[in-house]
Order: sequence, then C-alpha cells, then structure tokens
Amino acid sequence: MTEPTRSLGCCYYPEHWPRSLWAEDARRMAETGLTWVRIGEFAWSKLEPTPGDLRFDWLDEAIWTLGDAGLRIVLGTPTATPPRWMLDRHPDMLAVDATGHPRKFGSRRHYCFSHAGYAAESDRIVTLLADRYGRNDHVAAWQTDNEYGCHDTTISYSDAARAAFRRWLRARYPGTGNDGDIDALNAAWGNVFWSMEYRDFDEIDLPNLTVTEPNPAHALAFRRFSSDQVVAFNRRQADIIRARSTAPITHNYMGRITDFDHFAVGRDLDFASWDSYPLGFLEDRAGATPDQQRAFARQGDPDFQAFHHDLYRAVGRGRMWVMEQQPGPVNWAPHNPAPLPGMVRLWSWEAFAHGAECVSYFRWRQAPFAQEQLHAGLLRPDSQPAPGLEEAAQVAREIAQAPAVSAKSAEVALIFDYDADAAWAVQPHGAGLSYFGLVLDLYKAMRGLGLSVDILPATTRDFTGYRLIAAPGLMHMPGDLKSALAPAEAEVLIGPRSGARDGEFSIPVPLPPDFPGLDVTIAHIESLRPDCPAPLDQGGAFTGYCETLDGGAKVVERTATGAPALMRAGRVSYLGGWPDPVAARRIIAGLCARAGLDTVELPDGIRRRDTGTERFWFNHTERAVRVAGRDLPPISVTRELL
Amino acid sequence: MTEPTRSLGCCYYPEHWPRSLWAEDARRMAETGLTWVRIGEFAWSKLEPTPGDLRFDWLDEAIWTLGDAGLRIVLGTPTATPPRWMLDRHPDMLAVDATGHPRKFGSRRHYCFSHAGYAAESDRIVTLLADRYGRNDHVAAWQTDNEYGCHDTTISYSDAARAAFRRWLRARYPGTGNDGDIDALNAAWGNVFWSMEYRDFDEIDLPNLTVTEPNPAHALAFRRFSSDQVVAFNRRQADIIRARSTAPITHNYMGRITDFDHFAVGRDLDFASWDSYPLGFLEDRAGATPDQQRAFARQGDPDFQAFHHDLYRAVGRGRMWVMEQQPGPVNWAPHNPAPLPGMVRLWSWEAFAHGAECVSYFRWRQAPFAQEQLHAGLLRPDSQPAPGLEEAAQVAREIAQAPAVSAKSAEVALIFDYDADAAWAVQPHGAGLSYFGLVLDLYKAMRGLGLSVDILPATTRDFTGYRLIAAPGLMHMPGDLKSALAPAEAEVLIGPRSGARDGEFSIPVPLPPDFPGLDVTIAHIESLRPDCPAPLDQGGAFTGYCETLDGGAKVVERTATGAPALMRAGRVSYLGGWPDPVAARRIIAGLCARAGLDTVELPDGIRRRDTGTERFWFNHTERAVRVAGRDLPPISVTRELL
Amino acid sequence: MTEPTRSLGCCYYPEHWPRSLWAEDARRMAETGLTWVRIGEFAWSKLEPTPGDLRFDWLDEAIWTLGDAGLRIVLGTPTATPPRWMLDRHPDMLAVDATGHPRKFGSRRHYCFSHAGYAAESDRIVTLLADRYGRNDHVAAWQTDNEYGCHDTTISYSDAARAAFRRWLRARYPGTGNDGDIDALNAAWGNVFWSMEYRDFDEIDLPNLTVTEPNPAHALAFRRFSSDQVVAFNRRQADIIRARSTAPITHNYMGRITDFDHFAVGRDLDFASWDSYPLGFLEDRAGATPDQQRAFARQGDPDFQAFHHDLYRAVGRGRMWVMEQQPGPVNWAPHNPAPLPGMVRLWSWEAFAHGAECVSYFRWRQAPFAQEQLHAGLLRPDSQPAPGLEEAAQVAREIAQAPAVSAKSAEVALIFDYDADAAWAVQPHGAGLSYFGLVLDLYKAMRGLGLSVDILPATTRDFTGYRLIAAPGLMHMPGDLKSALAPAEAEVLIGPRSGARDGEFSIPVPLPPDFPGLDVTIAHIESLRPDCPAPLDQGGAFTGYCETLDGGAKVVERTATGAPALMRAGRVSYLGGWPDPVAARRIIAGLCARAGLDTVELPDGIRRRDTGTERFWFNHTERAVRVAGRDLPPISVTRELL
Ligand SMILES: [Zn+2]
Ligand SMILES: [Zn+2]
Ligand SMILES: [Zn+2]
Repeated sequence: MTEPTRSLGCCYYPEHWPRSLWAEDARRMAETGLTWVRIGEFAWSKLEPTPGDLRFDWLDEAIWTLGDAGLRIVLGTPTATPPRWMLDRHPDMLAVDATGHPRKFGSRRHYCFSHAGYAAESDRIVTLLADRYGRNDHVAAWQTDNEYGCHDTTISYSDAARAAFRRWLRARYPGTGNDGDIDALNAAWGNVFWSMEYRDFDEIDLPNLTVTEPNPAHALAFRRFSSDQVVAFNRRQADIIRARSTAPITHNYMGRITDFDHFAVGRDLDFASWDSYPLGFLEDRAGATPDQQRAFARQGDPDFQAFHHDLYRAVGRGRMWVMEQQPGPVNWAPHNPAPLPGMVRLWSWEAFAHGAECVSYFRWRQAPFAQEQLHAGLLRPDSQPAPGLEEAAQVAREIAQAPAVSAKSAEVALIFDYDADAAWAVQPHGAGLSYFGLVLDLYKAMRGLGLSVDILPATTRDFTGYRLIAAPGLMHMPGDLKSALAPAEAEVLIGPRSGARDGEFSIPVPLPPDFPGLDVTIAHIESLRPDCPAPLDQGGAFTGYCETLDGGAKVVERTATGAPALMRAGRVSYLGGWPDPVAARRIIAGLCARAGLDTVELPDGIRRRDTGTERFWFNHTERAVRVAGRDLPPISVTRELL
Repeated sequence: MTEPTRSLGCCYYPEHWPRSLWAEDARRMAETGLTWVRIGEFAWSKLEPTPGDLRFDWLDEAIWTLGDAGLRIVLGTPTATPPRWMLDRHPDMLAVDATGHPRKFGSRRHYCFSHAGYAAESDRIVTLLADRYGRNDHVAAWQTDNEYGCHDTTISYSDAARAAFRRWLRARYPGTGNDGDIDALNAAWGNVFWSMEYRDFDEIDLPNLTVTEPNPAHALAFRRFSSDQVVAFNRRQADIIRARSTAPITHNYMGRITDFDHFAVGRDLDFASWDSYPLGFLEDRAGATPDQQRAFARQGDPDFQAFHHDLYRAVGRGRMWVMEQQPGPVNWAPHNPAPLPGMVRLWSWEAFAHGAECVSYFRWRQAPFAQEQLHAGLLRPDSQPAPGLEEAAQVAREIAQAPAVSAKSAEVALIFDYDADAAWAVQPHGAGLSYFGLVLDLYKAMRGLGLSVDILPATTRDFTGYRLIAAPGLMHMPGDLKSALAPAEAEVLIGPRSGARDGEFSIPVPLPPDFPGLDVTIAHIESLRPDCPAPLDQGGAFTGYCETLDGGAKVVERTATGAPALMRAGRVSYLGGWPDPVAARRIIAGLCARAGLDTVELPDGIRRRDTGTERFWFNHTERAVRVAGRDLPPISVTRELL
Repeated sequence: MTEPTRSLGCCYYPEHWPRSLWAEDARRMAETGLTWVRIGEFAWSKLEPTPGDLRFDWLDEAIWTLGDAGLRIVLGTPTATPPRWMLDRHPDMLAVDATGHPRKFGSRRHYCFSHAGYAAESDRIVTLLADRYGRNDHVAAWQTDNEYGCHDTTISYSDAARAAFRRWLRARYPGTGNDGDIDALNAAWGNVFWSMEYRDFDEIDLPNLTVTEPNPAHALAFRRFSSDQVVAFNRRQADIIRARSTAPITHNYMGRITDFDHFAVGRDLDFASWDSYPLGFLEDRAGATPDQQRAFARQGDPDFQAFHHDLYRAVGRGRMWVMEQQPGPVNWAPHNPAPLPGMVRLWSWEAFAHGAECVSYFRWRQAPFAQEQLHAGLLRPDSQPAPGLEEAAQVAREIAQAPAVSAKSAEVALIFDYDADAAWAVQPHGAGLSYFGLVLDLYKAMRGLGLSVDILPATTRDFTGYRLIAAPGLMHMPGDLKSALAPAEAEVLIGPRSGARDGEFSIPVPLPPDFPGLDVTIAHIESLRPDCPAPLDQGGAFTGYCETLDGGAKVVERTATGAPALMRAGRVSYLGGWPDPVAARRIIAGLCARAGLDTVELPDGIRRRDTGTERFWFNHTERAVRVAGRDLPPISVTRELL
C-alpha cells in the first residue's frame, strides 16, 4: 500500500440518487478506469434521521454495489454536516463569528471545534461507522470530516471556545496547582502595556470586538489555541478509527486554509489529501494579479496547485492524494469559467508528477439540486458524459502504460510554517502582506527556474540531502532550528522577518535575526505602499516590506540607495525585504549557482517537475512554446524518462 | 376615467405647513395647471397622535381647501410611517436585517410585513380613513402605503417572519391535516445534500447567518414568501378601501425594486404608479457604467425611466401614473446634481409618451426640515418658484393643446418576471450578474433600434398581435408558457438560462431549455470574468455568462471559437449568453428583419416612442442631433402625428 | 511659564522597564537635550492592580529618578485604560458601536463617556493622583486621559448614552418642571415629517440602526450631545487637578478627530497639545490623493501638521505642544514607511515655527511587546540609538542657539468649527464631502501663497488685526457672528453652505446665506460627481459641490456656463462652491491683493511660516528648490531673522 502508485477515483453520493442507478454508476466508473470512490462524508441525516435511529442498510448496499464493481472505497465520517436535530441536543454548539453572531444551521460546518457535546457526538457516530465498516473489505481508506477550516470555520468566538481557551492558557502558563500562572501570562504578553493585566485566567476574553486591535500576543495565542482545537477534534476521530480498522486514514484539506496547523493534524493521519480547484482558487485565493487572473482564467495559476501538492506531500510525510479534483466549472467562485480542453488531464498529471497516489474527481455526477448544483461532475445531471469524463478516461489509459513510479527527495527545500502564517496574520505590518504570499512568491521563483521543491515543516531538524533551503518569513525561529540550519551543507536563505519574535510574540533582544554565525541585525523595519517599491541595484525591487540591516556580514545585494538588501556569511544568506518576481528569481538563481544546482529560465505558464524516473513538462498556455530544446504543444503534458 | 388622459399633479404635505398657506398653495397649483394632488401618506402621527385619539379635522380642511381650488386628491394610507407609540403596542413589529439586528424607529418603513399585530393596525387606520373619505367628492384616488420595498424592507428576518414562513411552507407542501409534508419539502429542495433534511417545518429557520450559502431552494422559497407577504399586506388595504370607495386604488412603486412581485400586487390595484427619480437612479441603481453616469449625470439614463414606464403600464394592466416625478436635485443619491434645463419637461413628456395618465411632481414645496430637506420641490422653501415650476407649467400648457391620446399595443414584447429576478439573485453564478440587468440590456438594444416595447408578465399566455417576443433569462418556464410561446406568430427569443430550473430550483432532466420544437440543450454553463468576454464571430461578445449549446437546431451565430451562440428552429431562437450592446443590437435587429419590423439605428441618448396617434423623439443630449431626416434640438421633445 | 519657549521631551513608560534602567534612561534623555518627560497615562493596572490596592511607590521612585536627572514631568491620568477589574464593577461601562455591539476590553479607550459609574472611578483615581503629586516639584504639568476620540470612541450607542441623551435633550428643550418640552423638540426637528413625532423624551432612541437615514436634526443633536459628554468628562478631571495643583493642565489631542469640540475641551485646559504622526496621517486620514501619498510617503503631507499646529494653538488660546512626535516608522497605518533622514528634525522645527512650546517624541524606547511593538522610539528595543535620536539631539542643540521666541498674530484668519464639521458629517450631501476637507483645502491654498494663518473658533467675535478672514462651510452662522464679520476691516470670505441651516438643522427663511449687506441668495444647491466638475471661466473648477446664486451683489467670478461663482459686496465675498486647488489659490490670491497682503507662489512641498522674529522655510521634497531668491536644500529647514 505504501509504495508509490498512481490511480484515479471519484466522489460519489449514493444517497443523492435512486438505488436503481448505483450499479450502473459503479460499472461506468470502473469502465472509465477509476479505482477509488469516496462516499459518505455528508450523509449523517440519512444514517441517523432522528437521534439514535440508525439506518446503515443503504450504506451497506452502496458499499457492496461499488465494491462488487471492483472499486475501493474511501469512507468519510459525516461530522462536517450534523443534522438539524443536533441543535436541539446542543443549542450552543454553533460557532460564533467575530461580531458575536451565531453561524447557523442551513449549510455545513456549523459547529464549534471547542464544543464538548458535539465532540462526543462526533465520537459516537465515528465509533458506529468504524465498528460497522472497520473490517469491511471494500473500505480501503477513511476520511475524517471534510475540509477543516473551510468557510472560515477554524476560529470561533463562542462561549465554548472562551472556556476552552482559558483552559488552554492555564496549561500553557501552568502554575502551582492547576489554576495557571497569570503573572507569567501577563509578562509573556506584555500586558503592562495599556493596563491590560489580568488577575485571573477567568478574566481573559476572546480577542474580538476590542476597541482597537487586541494585543498581538493575545491574538496569536487564540489562533494557536484554535489550531490545537482542530488537531484534537481530528485526533479523536483518528484514534477511534485506528482502533477498529487497519485501513489508512486521511483528511481532505482545502487550498490556502492556513488557520490551523496542517502538519499537526497530519501527524494523526496515514496520508494527506487535498481538494484541488484550480479555477476557483485563481479567482478567490491564489493572490494572482488581475492580469494573471485573466491570462490563466481557464487554466488556473501554474504554481498554486503545485505548491499544495508539495505542501501536502509533506503533511502526509510523503503520501498525498488529490481527494477532490475539479473536473469542469465550479459554482462557488466570483466567476466560474470552464477549463480549457486538456486541463483536467494536465491537472491530473501535474498531481501525479508531484507525488499524488490518487486523483479523485469531484464529483461523479453533477447534482441537480442544492448548493452545488452548478458544480460540474464527470457526468451531467442527465447522466450523459460531461467533458471531464473523457479526459479522466485518457489519464486512466495513460497511467496504465506509464513507467513504475519512483519518488525522490528534491534538492531544494522550502519551509512552510502555519504558526508563522498566524503571526503574520496577527501583525502583517503592511496592508495585504501575508506569510503565505511571501512563501508562494519564492516558490514561484524556484519553479520559474525549473526546480523541483520539497516543502518542509518548521519542525524539521535534519536537512540532509538538500542543497538549497529557503526559510523566509519565519517570525519565530526556535534556537534548535537555527542550530540545525546554521551548519547545513546547503545554501540557506532566511529573511525577511526571520526570528523577529520570540515564542510569545515579543521582539527579542539581541535584536533579530540573531542567527548563529551571521552578523546581521535588523535595525528597523518598514512597510511600503504598493506604489512605493524600493528598487534593488541589480534590478527588481523590494515591495511591501523592507528592513534596514546592520552588521558585519558580507553585503551581496544593495538597494538602489545603497542600503544592504541581501547579506551573507558562509552559506547563510539573509534577505532584507519582500522581493518582487525579478529580484526573487535572481536571488534564487544566484543561490542555485552557489549550490551547483542546474536551473533553466522557464517562460510564464511553463513548468517542469522531476520524479525519481521521469521529468514532466507542463504547458499551461494556449501557445506552443519552445523551451530547452523541446516543443511543448499548447495545454500539454510532456513526459520524459530521466 | 379609464380612457387615456394626460394630466399633472404634485405631492403635498399640508401637515408640514401652517394652515394659512394652504389656500394660496392650492391656488398656485391650479394656476400652474396641476389637476391632482397627493396627500396624507406620511401623516399618521398627525391623524392619531396617541392611540385612539383621532384628529381628522385638519385633513378634512386640507381636502376641502384643495378640492375647492379644483384639485382632485389622491389620498394615501399612512402605513409606511407608524408613529412611535406603535412600538409600545408592538415591540416586535420591527423588521430584522440579515445579521439579526432590528431596524429601528427613526425614519420610515420600520415594520415587518409578517407582523400580525401591525397588519391589524394597518387595517384599523385604513378602515378609519376609508370610512371617512371613501365617498368624499374630492378624493378621486387612493394610494396604499408608500414605496413598498424601498430601503430594502421586503425581506425581514424577524421572529414574525420565521413563524409566517413556516406556515407558508406548510401551505406550499401540504400534508394530510394541516401540518405539511416535510418529506415533500426535503425532496423538493434536495435537502439530502449536506444532511440538511428537516423532520418538521418547525425546524426550518430563515436562510440568514448560515456558515456558507444556504440551499438556493431555501433562499428562493424565502424570497417568494417575502413577496407574498407584501401582496397580502397590500391586498388587505385594497379590500378595505374598495368596500368603502369607488375611487380607484394605486400604489406608488419605486424604481428597480425587484424583491416582491409587482404584478401580483398590481392585480389588487386599479392602476399602477411609480416614483421616477432619473438622476438619483442613474447614480445608485440604473447599473450604468461610470462613463454613462458622467455623460448623463444631469439627464438620467435614457432608457431606465422608459423601461419602468413600460413595466408599470403592464403592472397596471394598461394604466400608469408617475406619482412622484423628480423636479430638481434630489437628496439621497451618492451625488445629487441638478437636471439640465428642459429635463423636467422632457421626463414629463417621456412619461406621457409611454402611456402615463398623470405626472405628479414630488413635491410642491421643498421642506426646510428633516431627511429630505435637500430634495427640490416645485417651490423653494421660501415659496419662491424653483426651476421645475415653469417647466411643469409649460407641460400643462402643452398637454392642453395636444391631440387626443390614443393607446396602442406595441409590436414588440419583452417579458419581465420578478420570480426570475429572485432566482438570479439567489444564484447569479457570476459576480454582478442580475436578471434585471439582462432584461434592461435587451430593452436598451430594442430602444436603440427605435422600437416601442410592451413589457409583459410571465403569466401571459396570449401573445396575439406581437411580432417579436423576447423572454430572456426566465430561469423557470412553466410548461404552458413554453406551449404558448412555441406556436406564436412572432419571432421568439429565449435564453440564456431559460428553463434552467424547475419550480423548486432544481435543474430539470431533460436538460434545459427543453423547449418544444427546439433541439437545443445547454450542455454546460460558465460565468466569465468581466475582462474575459467571449467574442462572437459577427462582432460583439458574450460577457459575464455563456452556455455551451448542443443539439440539431440551426446555428445562427457562433462564438469566435466556433461554438454555437444563437440557435434557431422555426421562429424560436435560443441565445446562449449575455450579449454586449453590439451583439444585442445586431441580434434584435436580425429578428426584427425576420419579423418585418422597421428599425432605425438611434445614436446614444436619442430615443423615440410611438403611441396610437403620435411619434415622440427625445434628445437627451446637449447636442443637436440629426437622425432619420430630423433635426432634434438639444434636450428636446419632438412630437409628430402618425 | 507662559512666555514662549522651545523645548523637547519624550514619552516614557517606567512601568515597562526594570527599575535598574530608569536612571540610565533619565541620564540619556537629559544628555540628548530633552527637558520634559511624560509618564503615567496608561499605568492604572500598576497603580491599582486590584480595586483599592494602591501602589504609588514605583511612581514615586520614577518621578524622583527622572526629576533628579533634571527632567520636568508631565503626569498623565490613566483613565484611557481602565484595568480589567473595572468591568466587574461596571459591566455596562463599555461603549457600544452603531450596530449595537459592545466595544470590549482588550485594548484601550473601552469606556462610554456617559457612564456615571466610570466617571466616578475617573474622579477617584484622578483625585488620588492629584492629592499625591499635586505639589510635587517635578510634576510640572498634567495631561488628562489620552487622545479623546481616538479609535472612534466619542460616539457610543450604549444604554448609558441613551439615558444621558434624553436628559441632555430635556435640558436643551426645557419645559415647565424638568421634564422638557417635547413639542418644542418635535417642532425644532421637523418630526412631523414621516410621523416621527414623540410624545415624551423617553421615546427618543439613539439614531442608529434606523431603516434609512435618521432625521439629520436627530443625528446632529446626538453628535452635539456626544461632544458635550467628552467636555464634561474632561472638565471633571481638570477641576479635580486644578484644586490640588498649580501645574498647568493639558490634553493630548489626536489628528483629524473632529467628533467633539476641541475648543470646548480646551477651555478647561491651560494649554493644548497634540500627537503628530505625519506618515501615519498621510496614509489614513490626511485625505491626500494617491499621487500625493506616493510623493510624500516618507515626509507626510506638507500642510496637515501645520494645520493642526495652528488649530491647536487656537484651542490652547495661544499655547500649544506636540505631546507625541513621530520619531520613525509607526505601526498602525495601512503602510508604515520610515521617514526620510532629516524629517524628524524638520517636523520638530515646523512645530516650533507654528508656536509649539515643546516637542515631545513618542516614545523614548521602542517596546518589544504588545500593540505598538513596531512603533519606533528614540531608542531601539535593545537601547541602541534609533535614527530619530540624533535628529532630536540636533534640534536640542539648535534651539539652544536660536533667537528668543516671539509670538505674533497672523494677518490671515481661518475659522474652524467642530459643530460645522458635525453638520457636514450628518449631511455631506455628496459622497466624500467633509467640512474638514473643505477647510483644509483653503488652508492649503493659503499656505501655497506663503501666508501664515491663525485658526479661530467660530465663537470669535473680535477680528481686530486680521486683513483676511475665511469662514468657509459654516452651515450654521449665529447672527452675532455675521454681525461681527460684516463690518470687519478685512476681506471676508464665506461660502459655500454658509448659514445654510439654523441652529436646529432646518433651512432658514429668508434663504441662506442671509448675510448683512450681501445681496446673495442660494437658490439651490447640488453635489457633483468627482468626474463632473464645474469649470470656472478664469480656470480651475468647483468640484463635488456647487450652488446656484441669485441676488444683486457683484459677480466676481463665473462658472464656464456663466453662472455666478463668487459674489461680493464691499469686503464680503461669497464663494458658491468647493474650489479645486487652482481656483482656491487664485481666489485667495485675489483677496490678498485686495487686502494688501504679500503672497508668493510656493512650489509643491515648499512652505514658509513667520513668527514675530523669524521666517522659516521648509522644503519637504528630496530636491533642492530655488524659491524667492533662496536655495532650499532637500529636506531642509531654513531660518531667517525678520
Ligand atoms: Zn418617495
Ligand atoms: Zn451584530
Ligand atoms: Zn498616542
């Protein structure tokens, strides 16, 4: 099971269709070349229409029907959609938004992660499912819940959350007995400022509705707490399933959800999976400029999916699926165009190139009703083939003939840290600045040079094998991370804002980055208007954010006004600002040259990716492009054996 | 009374002025050539300063004074402005906004249409008024309430609304006994999706504050319910008045209020009227581009008022007034410029050309106090003439010399359906798309070709006499509407989104449009970024929204990439996208050619309109324009006998 | 004490630092040339960690340590930051925002000015401080609270505010007995409009959450009330301190806070001070265009600080400090760039040129924790010098060598009236129009002509000595103000909107401006789209707002369409619109010529200011500029003896 494979699947909702359709659907799935089918994750009201009235018969039959057609089943727990009756039992289970309004029943994810009563209900239904299907031959994997954090549901300002936050804080600042050390919290947060000192943990409220911004230490603590609540909620499900089933457990993460620590959730999973909607993401979260949005409106951002493949491969400790793959137009973005012909195939192969073991299309058949009625499936609502179906079938034929899969670590590593993203979110310092955006910009620079990249969590301490390690924007860098990076046999790039805060969100003294062997000090920082970039003397500019650097380290690049922009000692370089694409590519290219890494200047929309045995070239543009001696047809995947 | 006439009037608030002014005001109104005066619609606190303490004496005198000067009176019911004491009796009568906040006393329209207690108060005051003035010789017409829906007041999320919505749903999905059939509702809405199934109607909440979007079927049902509440509220007033008076009953609708069914309200009225504020509308609701807003800042959109005249003529089943006509700058738009000299006259004649029986200026004298103190009147606050007064007097002189009015049905029909607007509002699919906008764009294309247009409700089944019928964007098309259109002896244009949903907001199978005799299927749809239009091969483009069409019908137009854009069988054409102005005008012109309708290419700002005996030309521009052999002076009305 | 001096200071928070640092900090302050140090204004939780447990020892020591180093202390009352325990005693003390949400603990200014319980707590702590330090030799001045109105905290919709508002209204409309005259209020507000009449003051709610806009008279009354609450709150502190100390009392106002009457607060102070953050203000409140924001991103608006210096000099009846001067990047604006080298010195000298007695930098050392951890100080968090320190030291050396200070009244007066700003805020008539913006635009025109300006409150009645008086936009002009201006031996410029409302926010009859000796009537008004300015025939345009003027006064300027734009009788001119920079400068220049005032056309970014003995030239640009025969180096201050 754990050796690399490539397979296809789809998401299916037997409860949406008459039973008479199930067998034919299963037959057509298999005929298309699909191996996997995910079911069950929103079916609680069909499994338990009223409390305690359990109806598993239909699910038994669905599993049997699908399995009998040769399909392997991913069974989802239905906890993202508690039925309406749950609210009668737990009226206070709803999450509460930042203005204090409850987030009501009527769609999905209507629960607060801190609500003990709902967590017990989650235990109950997961136990029932795992008891019944834990040894079922057809159930070959489990999915917990669905898209944690989607619709901004990680952070809740409910009473349950407030009570749990106080418990969490007591545990973080433990005192004699169990009541916590409030003086330690006050000192850690600097609550002397503005007389914000507390006498007891029970005085601490959630950081919403404050007159002006709350203490950033308070805000960051609440984000860390909120992340931990997701981790705990998921762990309960994983523990229950693992005690009852040997099938692997996953969760289907979403794109650019950063408000909980996916790595931490991932430690309780057997593999990671994610839901890839390139066109929707380009419209609502990839951070692309309007020009890029227009240029790639029907292809999606050429790096955004790749980034997430690499990220979730890391979250899954090497194992990653695309649990939901966009097969046509979606329904939920500001604008919902159709993919260009060939893009469904391209996205699928891109996922495989980045290590996906399975690409599962969402969904088998377009639903004619409810919220996602305009979300394309592989079939139209009338069961006729939608355009995605033939592309999926083509991919199925292609993977059957592809060489054996061979995974391989990249030589370039990029650290991504959810806690750093939270820190930037709490204190972006300049409008529009985000950690995710900074990391993605560097990733794009790497990809534009043809590099294959491994994303690593900030908990990594062994960097063996990497020749270039980039760790931009890590506002907090524990001492042992610095110690692990300092002697790495790789070029190491840190900055901007690296080590800018201690673990409690104070500015440390000695001033940042305080990196071993690197005589660089951030003397002060500033954020820049978008129309006021700071040009660099070798071209490009810092945009949005830049630092004034002091110290004796070598100045490698300067701003146009002569201030140090990139400083270096040995193999460690410090970048003193947010580089624009020109600067980012040059700086990464320079580090690659020092590290002896081959690079190639790829045009916009052309990307490549190496596995252990193959090199993939992807052309996301509608033009044929000649690059590195190859002719890449429009909207194409080109595979070469290495 | 019901034969076409043309007259002028004004809105007057005797309660705002000392009684000593009334007679002189009445005399000057008559001298100006006004025939009608509307009074009373905001005067509840003067009629009943405390509960049960009725003070009709002043109104008796005002009516006598005005009537004695030869003026005919439209008497308004004051239910749009319940006095402050009403809240002591009915603290829960306020509407509630989508975030759950009450919409408080302190302006107007502070009531929820679903509140039974307030509805009874409405009955009471209307009964008192109708009892007292139902046979009064001077009271020649009645107005119910004022501008239903203005300030977004149709939709309320109050407790009263929730209870009434549940009753409404039970009636829509009736069961044995009176408790409704919840399974029917669950099936109709597709509540199996995301486990949204209900066990009882009492579990159904209003569709606000949900975590992500609610079920569109739920949202649409709530909009339909909200519309029905307005209809019922108005019907109670109309029934009370009609039992006590033979004078005709109207309501003064507002521009671009689409959240209740004006046709349904209109069925309880004797004629329709509306409040026409061209400059305010251009700024805040006509949907004009910034360029158009600048070009017509002092004239208003050249089609927006015309559209409403035609619309409300249909709502009034042939009878229409302008109850409030902008006479100078208004106070409530983002910017409030003064009309160009001549525009008050132009607007008045435009209304008459479109069938208005009366144009009544709002208001006689500018109020020096309260919310509308910067709203111009025919008189300034110091009783001196404002610029509009002389223009009104000129119109009065002109209509006295005009030929007899002769109404005539147009040869071009355009269907407008409030339920379709609600459906698009619930599911625009692309940001900024609206049914109203689509219909208005086609109307503009027709008007740019010199066509006179009848607007028809979607309940029309007899299309006799029309040679071109356009029914764009009707997301739900009942079978008998299709059956009525299919054999029409006219060119029929449907699409986009025609028949895209069944009556419960599900996608029907066979797929849309499923139109008799027309082999066209919408294979899939997409919404487009504004910067990504889909060019058509004959010029122009689809913008915002387009469909992929299958089927054997003739392809009349294609996109630049060769996909079918306009398909036809016999006299029925299906348009597969939202046409830009170039495409819309060409497509309408082509259909006119097929139908044998004469067209003329009118420049921007030039419009014409035919009645049974006259042809009117309107020049909304500050330039003299030569068109069709005529010289139209700047800002002018040109009348020709046909 | 009251003769003009120039000194420097800083803001210091001993409670943020170990006691071991205090003496060294004090020594370095003195060494830098600072004379003053402000302390204590946020330290309540350290002074009274739990109710009644008073800890003044540390403050005693801090005062002693600082004073011993030769520093004079400004002691702040800590009422802007009540500790968390205050909420246990007064749970309802929080302000409430316009949507009805409490504004919670967790930052600062979390109190409603109308809460009697909190006002008593304020009395208590201020009394304790004044008792202890009122005679302390080192405490040489007092500051009440901190930045009233900052974070939009003047206006609160709390229950306490509602009750107090009713009392305030009863006092404003007094009846027999104490219960008020509700008929007088109804008449004054025009509540007959829309049946808004009240039967009792207890029926009056706050003007939030109304269905559409509330009565502007209601809204203005609430703003006036809210302003009075700030005045009363401050007066209680001032009275307590004054009874116990001879040291002068000030308050540190913020920039562009206009929602309470600073002049009225100022009448209870001995001098005014304000907090000057040029770069933050340019980003978030100066009203600059994006081009100006880019051009002066690191210098700040060249007029905005000057305006406030002149304004607060008037508020302080001639005495003004900068209590907080930006010394480097701030943390709170949308973007937070660093000042150009030399700007801290320039800002300091600019303040002195406008009459500041002290410029006090905020803050001594950058805090490593809490909300303002990214706000620069004179020292970095590690106690190393930040760039501002040497500039401050340079200023200290320069003022030591400067000639004696000599204040002098300007010859040009500009009236600024907080009540007029409230009136415009209640009824801007056009989007984006504000009284503050209008006055600032005229001030810029004056400054661009090299004029030194005195700002005067609208309560001024003696205008002796001025040769040009501008009073734009005073929507309400009491009769005695008109009478005082009409015979002034100066050119007087009024309009637009001058006298447009009576004291109750009704349009007066005779129509505005009804100015003695000036035959001008505002026939009607309009607001203009930003893209629809009204050009003037001598160049420039009216933008946003213009009036149609009637009357027999001389027409001095006309619009391009020939309408009167500027009318005059004798020395009184009426301006019928909002002039753009070209028009404003020409009109002011013309008046100066009539008044015999010398002017000079200053380029962008160059400004001058005269005191009694010196002429200052400021170059805010990065270019050397030659003007009036002088070469002004980039970013420079040039001082000349007069
Ligand atoms: Zn109206
Ligand atoms: Zn709220
Ligand atoms: Zn401050």
